[in-house]
Amino acid sequence: MTLFFVGMGLHDHLDLTFKGVEIARRCDKVYVELYTSLMAGLNLRKLEEILGRKVHVLSRGDLEGAKAQEILREAMEDDVALLVPGDPFIATTHIALKIEAKKLGVEVKTVHAASIASAIPGLTGLSFYKFGRKATVVYPEPNYRPEAAYDVVKENLLRGLHTMLLLDVKAEQGLYMTVPEALRILLDVEEKRREGVLSPEALAVGVSRAGSLNPEVKACSIERLLSLDLGPPPHTLVIPGDLHFMEEEALMYLCGATKDEVEVHKRRLKLLREVRAL
Amino acid sequence: MTLFFVGMGLHDHLDLTFKGVEIARRCDKVYVELYTSLMAGLNLRKLEEILGRKVHVLSRGDLEGAKAQEILREAMEDDVALLVPGDPFIATTHIALKIEAKKLGVEVKTVHAASIASAIPGLTGLSFYKFGRKATVVYPEPNYRPEAAYDVVKENLLRGLHTMLLLDVKAEQGLYMTVPEALRILLDVEEKRREGVLSPEALAVGVSRAGSLNPEVKACSIERLLSLDLGPPPHTLVIPGDLHFMEEEALMYLCGATKDEVEVHKRRLKLLREVRAL
Repeated sequence: MTLFFVGMGLHDHLDLTFKGVEIARRCDKVYVELYTSLMAGLNLRKLEEILGRKVHVLSRGDLEGAKAQEILREAMEDDVALLVPGDPFIATTHIALKIEAKKLGVEVKTVHAASIASAIPGLTGLSFYKFGRKATVVYPEPNYRPEAAYDVVKENLLRGLHTMLLLDVKAEQGLYMTVPEALRILLDVEEKRREGVLSPEALAVGVSRAGSLNPEVKACSIERLLSLDLGPPPHTLVIPGDLHFMEEEALMYLCGATKDEVEVHKRRLKLLREVRAL
Repeated sequence: MTLFFVGMGLHDHLDLTFKGVEIARRCDKVYVELYTSLMAGLNLRKLEEILGRKVHVLSRGDLEGAKAQEILREAMEDDVALLVPGDPFIATTHIALKIEAKKLGVEVKTVHAASIASAIPGLTGLSFYKFGRKATVVYPEPNYRPEAAYDVVKENLLRGLHTMLLLDVKAEQGLYMTVPEALRILLDVEEKRREGVLSPEALAVGVSRAGSLNPEVKACSIERLLSLDLGPPPHTLVIPGDLHFMEEEALMYLCGATKDEVEVHKRRLKLLREVRAL
């Protein structure tokens, strides 16, 4: 039978697609995982109401342990749906499960849904084609390197590309990193490395609650962004690269940047590249 | 009043979200544009049925000309919905309209939907975090440079990153570029430039009908991909960069690459970088 990965979109149960709901309704069993991203408006009771059935909630570790084997065994006999926040397979765990399913001869089908990957270019007005590789800013821990995100920003800036930075989620502890927290972590790396990639006057864009009908999108200097209240999570951070004329307009008219902040940004990028070229 | 940009997702009317349908139903006027991407399963009659109302179809040029001004004037008085394929604002035209609306004091809200941006990492199993900048392979024309896509692939490969290549759409002429057409355009650039970025034995992934329940995803040498039938459009092309162990498994188990094709790919990338380092 078939294992359906069904994306739930970004914010609440209304972000489900008709296709996703139709499939989940006729599967023999429905699971949901809610720990890879925060869907701030999602309510499990409402989700069960829209699907007209019981939904089994998975906890972190379930998809990597014995529970995953159980789900795969079920999918060999029955149609099983696994609902996930955003669009499926952005999380490595889901890809591993899909490969495992294929190895066992289980058919896998995907219902796509809204993702932060396209929502961020849309909300900021920064061109989809000018985003370089993405990174996640993680809470400092012995095994993690928050410097990896700094390196990605640096690599992208030197090529004039924008960087989308996803922020760490530790759902079990109720921790969802905010834009100011992420900025402080990145400024700490700058403090240590002194490569001029970021500074208080550098331009950044903070986004909160992408996918809701009331997201906040603020483009300004890091210094100003540190003092702004973007409201509840989830938050996302963007470091812009070179700006086309229409992107400048977007940052000013859609995201509230001042002409001055945009000009400082352009001078900083030029300088950063000149120094590197020496 | 408000101008709502409502994403329709990737394939058919069932990819609409509950939020999008709810909003379109209660707007005073609903427009749809169907020329920036192909939604292969979309049927206008079914769309009007699901929305329970008349939908006004825009043609290319409408959103850049006098019609755009008319829509903006309407949105100053009434709630207006503009339905677009995929997730809104991937097309520059939509961003320009959003900026224009803001300048006129019209409120703008977005309903996000599935996009090729996240569907492609999901379908191929290639890590979302390892995609570099994207590009579009365009039909050769006096004012366009198909070489821009080649340069993006080169830049990404030298950094070990994957490249997602969107393929040209000329909806008015019924032209939707296929993977073999795109490969031939890129091989022609290689023929002229001889930088070793692409070759018949290079690894590529062809995807067709992403977002439908029956997409094709084939990873193999360009030579083999040129001879495969991926079925009807839309098509998307991916040139993989460095492969993590799980990405190798994904290309083999999910996309049909042979162990041999993966090994040749790894040797080619290593060589490409060694030659550049000389």
